[in-house]
Amino acid sequence: MPKQVDHRERRETIARALWRVVEQRGIAHASVREVAQEAGISHGAVQHYFATREEMLVFAMDFASEQTARRVADSLRAFGDPAHPSDPPHPRDLLRVMLTEMLPLHPDARATSRMSAAYVLEALHDANIHTRARDGLKHGRGLVEQIVRQAIADGRIGTDRDPATETNLLLALTGLTPLIELGVIEPEAALAAVDQHLERLFSGEA
Amino acid sequence: MPKQVDHRERRETIARALWRVVEQRGIAHASVREVAQEAGISHGAVQHYFATREEMLVFAMDFASEQTARRVADSLRAFGDPAHPSDPPHPRDLLRVMLTEMLPLHPDARATSRMSAAYVLEALHDANIHTRARDGLKHGRGLVEQIVRQAIADGRIGTDRDPATETNLLLALTGLTPLIELGVIEPEAALAAVDQHLERLFSGEA
Repeated sequence: MPKQVDHRERRETIARALWRVVEQRGIAHASVREVAQEAGISHGAVQHYFATREEMLVFAMDFASEQTARRVADSLRAFGDPAHPSDPPHPRDLLRVMLTEMLPLHPDARATSRMSAAYVLEALHDANIHTRARDGLKHGRGLVEQIVRQAIADGRIGTDRDPATETNLLLALTGLTPLIELGVIEPEAALAAVDQHLERLFSGEA
Repeated sequence: MPKQVDHRERRETIARALWRVVEQRGIAHASVREVAQEAGISHGAVQHYFATREEMLVFAMDFASEQTARRVADSLRAFGDPAHPSDPPHPRDLLRVMLTEMLPLHPDARATSRMSAAYVLEALHDANIHTRARDGLKHGRGLVEQIVRQAIADGRIGTDRDPATETNLLLALTGLTPLIELGVIEPEAALAAVDQHLERLFSGEA
């Protein structure tokens, strides 16, 4: 189905152009006009792929989440045991990769992180985006809680830990973002904080 | 100097109008025109108090930080020992109040939290705001690190803790904000996470 592939590819090209506009100029500039210009295509062509600015924003955010998940999966391959490639990764490694890919520590992660921060603010004034953003965050939170619960069941995290609270504390680590973005702390200091938190979480490992 | 008082008051009135615009419609709407309309004064009157939109934004953010600091000071009075009103508060109480006033848990804190989130994104595309935002965050981070270092020196936090990392982990708790704003977790769950983190930080207390 080459036509559908092309359709999807064009939407992704437009989404990446939107990310660049958000990253470099802010979401206030993410109009169909400015995104079309950034993508190097006509206003009408963008409208062919997205009926509204909102539809374009929602797709760009979903695509950002997908790309983050893909980067996580790619990174995890490096952690696998070559002798047992199908073994699941240690949950500490999994959480570390998930968290560090959510922080603006390299260009791709910075683009998706800025897209995500802008999307949350946009959600506060747009009911449809609010629902989408809430569902996306709920889904991501659910994945992290599942990892935490499994790690408790496997004796890797102490049974005295509350899974919901530990999940919230893990996701809170994305709060390092403004410190990194404004150059208040170095990326190394952010990674040290993430590692320190994970080390304590898994300190009761049997 | 009634004239200067009036000048300051008018600037604060405009700043509060700007917060409302940011909270309800987003920073993209925080133009001199929309803020003037929200404040119920003329465009020209706003320009009398602020030469540029940027000057207005910077003042509104500084005022938000001041108001947050004032709420922290107000809350701390409730923690004081009535028999020794001049005793400094316990650092755990101090940090708890600082952190909870940075989270969108009540209307005033929500207004300043949204202002702050929008300001960080604005800083990424405006060199002057970047400098101001970075200096403000550095200053706030410095205050927290001072509290952590003093608490270590006083034997209230274990000497095995690294003050810089602990400071970064405390500030990271503001990462609970999107979870609260999008209704993914309840305010009580956010407070439970903050309390859990503080309890562990002070667990080595002598």
